[in-house]
Amino acid sequence: MTTLPVPRNLAELQTPAPLVDAAILAANLARMAQAWPGERLRPHVKAHKCTELARHQRGSGHPGFTCATIREVEGMVAAGLGQDLLLANEVLDASRLGALVAAGARVTVAVDSPATVHAAQRAGLREVLVDVNVGLPRCGCAPDDAGSLAELARGAGLEVRGVMGYEGHTMMVGDRDDRARQVAKSMALLEQAHGAVGGPVRSAGGTGSWDLNASATELQAGSYALMDTAYAAIGVPFGPALSILATVISVSPKGWAVADCGLKALGMDHGNPSLPDSSAVWYCSDEHVVFGPPAGGSLPKVGDQVRVLPAHVDPTVAYHERLYLTEGDRVLEAWPVDLRGW
Amino acid sequence: MTTLPVPRNLAELQTPAPLVDAAILAANLARMAQAWPGERLRPHVKAHKCTELARHQRGSGHPGFTCATIREVEGMVAAGLGQDLLLANEVLDASRLGALVAAGARVTVAVDSPATVHAAQRAGLREVLVDVNVGLPRCGCAPDDAGSLAELARGAGLEVRGVMGYEGHTMMVGDRDDRARQVAKSMALLEQAHGAVGGPVRSAGGTGSWDLNASATELQAGSYALMDTAYAAIGVPFGPALSILATVISVSPKGWAVADCGLKALGMDHGNPSLPDSSAVWYCSDEHVVFGPPAGGSLPKVGDQVRVLPAHVDPTVAYHERLYLTEGDRVLEAWPVDLRGW
Repeated sequence: MTTLPVPRNLAELQTPAPLVDAAILAANLARMAQAWPGERLRPHVKAHKCTELARHQRGSGHPGFTCATIREVEGMVAAGLGQDLLLANEVLDASRLGALVAAGARVTVAVDSPATVHAAQRAGLREVLVDVNVGLPRCGCAPDDAGSLAELARGAGLEVRGVMGYEGHTMMVGDRDDRARQVAKSMALLEQAHGAVGGPVRSAGGTGSWDLNASATELQAGSYALMDTAYAAIGVPFGPALSILATVISVSPKGWAVADCGLKALGMDHGNPSLPDSSAVWYCSDEHVVFGPPAGGSLPKVGDQVRVLPAHVDPTVAYHERLYLTEGDRVLEAWPVDLRGW
Repeated sequence: MTTLPVPRNLAELQTPAPLVDAAILAANLARMAQAWPGERLRPHVKAHKCTELARHQRGSGHPGFTCATIREVEGMVAAGLGQDLLLANEVLDASRLGALVAAGARVTVAVDSPATVHAAQRAGLREVLVDVNVGLPRCGCAPDDAGSLAELARGAGLEVRGVMGYEGHTMMVGDRDDRARQVAKSMALLEQAHGAVGGPVRSAGGTGSWDLNASATELQAGSYALMDTAYAAIGVPFGPALSILATVISVSPKGWAVADCGLKALGMDHGNPSLPDSSAVWYCSDEHVVFGPPAGGSLPKVGDQVRVLPAHVDPTVAYHERLYLTEGDRVLEAWPVDLRGW
């Protein structure tokens, strides 16, 4: 790892560099905290993998967090943010989580099968949520099996805090009414399972259902903090806090420019990134984004800096070592992306 | 970073974990070294970002390497592999490269504009290649401008070692005859430029043109060492050395399984990964790959380990901290992926 002093302005940054606009981030955190205050929001750290950003979310009033990997849980505990962590995923070897619990952290894990219940028990975990399939073909037991799984877990000495069910298949439904209907249908399944399971928690939702999910006792949203163009396209009202600063390294007289933000600096599963001035992005290769001029506009010059807006925030951030908090052209702080890996 | 002792077998690995089959890697390196021996191959480290793997490539006879980022150049020098490094990319701030040259490393950089020539000069670099556009709409000057750019560079006191021109647009052309024709067309442009530029080097090519490019004095291939399903699909005869080990964490009675190798463990720009038994991959999310059973076969069980074959090696490796060299179920060594970042 290169350890460099934090540059003071954008012109000094080695590109590609992920920038977080401090004002947009603060507005996103405030808007969400108003709708889902305190414990009602359990911010998902997978969307930023950054304990400094999580600290700001805690500063917005949210004491508990959602994690997707064991490493994320470990890193949050190491940062002093282990008051109430949910690993919203199934694990077969939970020994590292058990060690955290033995050392005093509060870690709840999702279970959806006898094997995952036994893994939690073996590792010395104390608390679980029954993960229920609410329509997304991924993890989660059938709603009808949730009660017996809870019984199995309680028989194994585990505290069952309730249920979780992620309506992920609804997040990107473009039509808002349709999205609302599908969210409600998923939550009806989760409520049915919750009735059989008991416990105070019904954990669900994400940025796409933040103002549609009327059922979750706690929302697991993550993308709202930094945002991406895919969520922006469905009209959620959080601002684009994240952009990747890039340098134009080549311009062709034939009508394209190349900047040094390639697909190793971007999650590509939601497609190409965008440029704020609506330049047409042609394609990305490992270390390059190639783009044409915006409609009626012209190409930048070699050496110019441009900002690239990622299509999917989570896998974008996971490529970078640090996020730079910015205000205009000033760099305020450098935040390690310290929750990467597994 | 978690520092763990190297596990001795696959069952002990935290998944997802990138595995490198030692025998397949050795066969790939040997096959390429036979066709492009010694200095005729300049292996591209961007495909693995791992100095230990580069050391094996040097052991196969290749003293020089190709890099895509400043960090890759720095890491190779730090690992004692700085005998002859080409940064096959344009940079506007070359000061970190200049520091390496001042300390005794040999670093050649690509230039395609007066601005990049001046950047190299300012930074104290001594050697450049003129990067020529040979058909891929990306970097590189027009073939007709190569001679005057070389003149400018020489006037600035730089040694011009020759030209480079990456025929990247031809790499994935499925039909071999068509690929051959397109490679030849690109190399005719590069030869024309080379005539105007002079110098001993005509650097070009990649894994997709390894047995078609009859013009390059040195080949810049990288993917051949570890391979991926996209290159396998066009029939290049290198074996799948890289796979990602994953654990099945959930199986649905409705007919799908979920393993813990998601899109943050895979480059997704070439599409979904594959499973060796031809199970149908449905989709990936951040930490999950969801798949159905293979034709006529059945799903694995919760807790089983499966291997996932990435579609694009370069952005896959860039997500991981280390590669595990394996022989069957044994883990031989752990190699840091130490060239990540910028």
